[in-house]
Amino acid sequence: MNQHPDYLLNKIKSPADLKQLSLAQMQQLAEEIRTLIIEKDSVTGGHLGPDLGIVEATIAYHYVFNAPKDKIVWDVSHQTYPHKMLTGRAYAWLDPDRYGDVTPYSNPEESPYDYFAVGHTSTSISLATGMAKARDLMGGKENIMALIGDGSMTGGVAFEGLNNAAIEPHNLVVVVNDNQWSIDKNVGGLTVALKALRDSNGQAAANPFTAMGFDYRYVADGNDLEAMIEAFKGVKDVDHPILLHINTLKGKGYQPAIDDEEGHHWVMPFNLKDDSSKAPASKPSPASVAVKTVEEAIDQGNKRIMAINAAIPGVFGLDDMKVNYPAHYVDVGIAEQESVGFAAGFAKEGATPVLFENSTFLQRAFDQLSHDVAANNLPVVMVVAGGTISPNSKTHVGYFDQVMLSNLPNWTYLAPSSLAEVKAMLKWAIEQKQGPVAIKLPGGSVPEGDPENTLENYDEIKYQEVKHGEKTAILALGATLEKGIKAAEELGASLFNPISANILDTDCLDQLAKDYDLILTLEDNTLDGGFGQKIASYLADKPVLVKSFGLSRMYIDTDMSFAKILEDNHLNVDQIVADARELLD
Amino acid sequence: MNQHPDYLLNKIKSPADLKQLSLAQMQQLAEEIRTLIIEKDSVTGGHLGPDLGIVEATIAYHYVFNAPKDKIVWDVSHQTYPHKMLTGRAYAWLDPDRYGDVTPYSNPEESPYDYFAVGHTSTSISLATGMAKARDLMGGKENIMALIGDGSMTGGVAFEGLNNAAIEPHNLVVVVNDNQWSIDKNVGGLTVALKALRDSNGQAAANPFTAMGFDYRYVADGNDLEAMIEAFKGVKDVDHPILLHINTLKGKGYQPAIDDEEGHHWVMPFNLKDDSSKAPASKPSPASVAVKTVEEAIDQGNKRIMAINAAIPGVFGLDDMKVNYPAHYVDVGIAEQESVGFAAGFAKEGATPVLFENSTFLQRAFDQLSHDVAANNLPVVMVVAGGTISPNSKTHVGYFDQVMLSNLPNWTYLAPSSLAEVKAMLKWAIEQKQGPVAIKLPGGSVPEGDPENTLENYDEIKYQEVKHGEKTAILALGATLEKGIKAAEELGASLFNPISANILDTDCLDQLAKDYDLILTLEDNTLDGGFGQKIASYLADKPVLVKSFGLSRMYIDTDMSFAKILEDNHLNVDQIVADARELLD
Repeated sequence: MNQHPDYLLNKIKSPADLKQLSLAQMQQLAEEIRTLIIEKDSVTGGHLGPDLGIVEATIAYHYVFNAPKDKIVWDVSHQTYPHKMLTGRAYAWLDPDRYGDVTPYSNPEESPYDYFAVGHTSTSISLATGMAKARDLMGGKENIMALIGDGSMTGGVAFEGLNNAAIEPHNLVVVVNDNQWSIDKNVGGLTVALKALRDSNGQAAANPFTAMGFDYRYVADGNDLEAMIEAFKGVKDVDHPILLHINTLKGKGYQPAIDDEEGHHWVMPFNLKDDSSKAPASKPSPASVAVKTVEEAIDQGNKRIMAINAAIPGVFGLDDMKVNYPAHYVDVGIAEQESVGFAAGFAKEGATPVLFENSTFLQRAFDQLSHDVAANNLPVVMVVAGGTISPNSKTHVGYFDQVMLSNLPNWTYLAPSSLAEVKAMLKWAIEQKQGPVAIKLPGGSVPEGDPENTLENYDEIKYQEVKHGEKTAILALGATLEKGIKAAEELGASLFNPISANILDTDCLDQLAKDYDLILTLEDNTLDGGFGQKIASYLADKPVLVKSFGLSRMYIDTDMSFAKILEDNHLNVDQIVADARELLD
Repeated sequence: MNQHPDYLLNKIKSPADLKQLSLAQMQQLAEEIRTLIIEKDSVTGGHLGPDLGIVEATIAYHYVFNAPKDKIVWDVSHQTYPHKMLTGRAYAWLDPDRYGDVTPYSNPEESPYDYFAVGHTSTSISLATGMAKARDLMGGKENIMALIGDGSMTGGVAFEGLNNAAIEPHNLVVVVNDNQWSIDKNVGGLTVALKALRDSNGQAAANPFTAMGFDYRYVADGNDLEAMIEAFKGVKDVDHPILLHINTLKGKGYQPAIDDEEGHHWVMPFNLKDDSSKAPASKPSPASVAVKTVEEAIDQGNKRIMAINAAIPGVFGLDDMKVNYPAHYVDVGIAEQESVGFAAGFAKEGATPVLFENSTFLQRAFDQLSHDVAANNLPVVMVVAGGTISPNSKTHVGYFDQVMLSNLPNWTYLAPSSLAEVKAMLKWAIEQKQGPVAIKLPGGSVPEGDPENTLENYDEIKYQEVKHGEKTAILALGATLEKGIKAAEELGASLFNPISANILDTDCLDQLAKDYDLILTLEDNTLDGGFGQKIASYLADKPVLVKSFGLSRMYIDTDMSFAKILEDNHLNVDQIVADARELLD
């Protein structure tokens, strides 16, 4: 039920309605939007600070421009809650029963006001520049704008976009939403440049944007609705590229989000009364075990370790490391290519880099993983989180890191199935010097594992028999081991932990081909380019049947039924068992 | 035999010998080095302009610094011929019998003066920053430097590197070798900034480097040996990050390379007398057919097409398009991420982008291929060159694009086997709107093909039977079709053209499993993540044997025997036939 039937927002069905309001009414709207963001986030969790900071700019945009004819590309699109509320989707904030009815990122399937599904940073300028070029070629006249936060500006593709946007011959506006923060605190030379511009009210001579040829404008208070309306009026229908630098306050309107911006970039459900989290206290997780393993290695005397991440310390709980091991911690900003290249250089000198990466964002660094690390066979260690089939936005799916890493030469990709294996594998990886090693942190509920039965050495990959049976042998990789145990019990099958996503134990496989009628492979990944296809291909010229289970070549999305995805892909234990029985008949 | 026994260079066994020379002697050395570059390139081909331009800077570097203790990372390392000559490898230029004894890029296996195998642009600053951090952590004091050309500066990872380098607390020097050119003419806002700095002798206030916090120095003539020595002395042993901007002349010392810099960035063997090429006149190639197909589509009225490339028009012969179809051509600079993001924006507007990419460099854009193009299912068209198993440097291998593209959702990856198929597939791709389509240009000697027997429509993938036989069916993808024909003849086997690297004709495969004892797959690619593993996996639960032929997970390199690589991987027709016969027995 609508919790705020009295809100002015109820009357805004589209930006056309917004254009009828007075300034005072729009300021009231801003208050309503802020209240709704906080209320819903306290229940469902979500992005908080970025949305609170962009309220006035969004209202001003829709007041001045004529969307959807005029187009805006929201970088990352994690700041689009106000935009969604003003473009016919306020119900998903007004009515708790409908909290789930609108997706968290921009979504062309949801609204004509959204142009792209995006969720990774720094691509908005490239996208907008391509749109502007197409508009010019086809004779259009609409305004095209990219809005990008200062944190996203550190991603190299943003610079590639700026470099081309600066020389566009026609209308194109890049709004840099400078709130002095990315997900973590901003780092690097660009921060220096933006600060000098803020401190000089946009007048500093050493301006990287004017240096590139942009017409440049500055708004000192990007949360001043009137100022933003004036600024947007000033750049509307211009005939050349303009960079509009606006200074906004991330988290504006919610004091805890201002006091602790990093902790309120994205939030879990929280209590409105005191901002305390509703999430249960955290237990040891694969991520926390990985961080602890690195800390222990340093404590035990390995002083050459550097924990490296690209603006995502929160994903791993690296914040304590930053405080307690400052010499062994670096955050390169949102710059995954840099993180991997940096690690390559670090390893070359004989020191030990440990990269903490998120599967979906690691996609940015494919070339560095090959060209800089693998081709040089450098002992870079990497821990990858989020590499799992899970209900997620299609822009954030995490099953391509395995495709990337496991098909490159020299990389060993290990897939632990328990907390004990996470620890043992990372400990080994840090000490070894044979080449690059990545560790795929298991998703879902991860068992503690038994340190006694966990290998200590992974110089060679030897499959571990977990349970002995007959006729069928199941190879269950990483997080799927629990599923494999259940299927093996039902089938009376043997179960093996194959340890690695890409190094095959061919001695074991040759023996399995002789001893069994059927081999099943399970993995928490896509079939295409994955572990099962390697096993199937290796065994394809031998008289044993192989059946691989994994996700088909598709994007999962938040508006799909996850249960149906699992069923369609035969990923439930009863389906795996049924498929095996059919093949054994 | 040494062609120049009188050269001073014969006495330079290492940089220590260089340090004994007078300025006049080093100037003589510069002349010798230039002569040798031109002489050897005229016989073997190679990079020309970049090496001619960097001679004085290289001599000055080794005169002032103490390599290999002090370290320099050469971006791309296509400008390292002078460096190689000064670090004990001059024999490979002095003696034509030894022209092949030194590899073309920096190579740690070849010399302690080379730190990384590199060949892709823009990574040097990341690598150097990581090295500097490791040095600091381990208590070292050596100088660390990255040298990067202005063309490579447009690659986003260079900016990511700069952003972090600027805040390094200790010694780190970034040399921007500004010769106003990349592979093609430089484009974009950075060009504007560099020109302003050159025009003002480094004094322009709008300086993107000082804006980021760098200490900045400028050398107006980077080919003035004395000036370069002074400049390097000025930055040696500094305790903070410095950006040294040097203005050099690409191609210096060889007038044709100055007059036509683009044509002399990298050269085929040429006649010293008149610079004419020794290469035979070019016949129609997959690349030229692709370009012509795009031109014809425009001529026939499709005015919404844009041919997009990232600083490699020469790879495809796009230069004429630039002149004759300027509204339909864009070069985004060395910025593959931007090229793909730009194409996504362009397609979103309803226009048709046709990307011309090189397999090895396309690795930079993996995330954009997924997140921006595939997740939005935009009808981006892409032509990929160089995706082939060929004798190459390990930094330039071209077999990961198929791994990248063919395992992503929504992409259709087509693999033409003839010029006629290149044309038909591209024509179809430009007209279709169902999603992104890539076309893998075949390498090697490509048959013309028969337009009569070439499909026009690829909405659905239907395998084409090329030859009918029995017992064995061969699926020969793209460039391997010719090899498949020979193997099929020897085996009396059936031969199919499977058309696509990733869309399986499951009806046909189901039938093949019934009709044949053995299926062979051939592809010009790695086995891991490739076509054969998909086929093997699909057929693995059916009672038919499958044997896939492709490259194992390895980097090919120029110092390996290519014949041995083919043999080790059973890629010769007689080996394929023998393996099949063994399985049929």
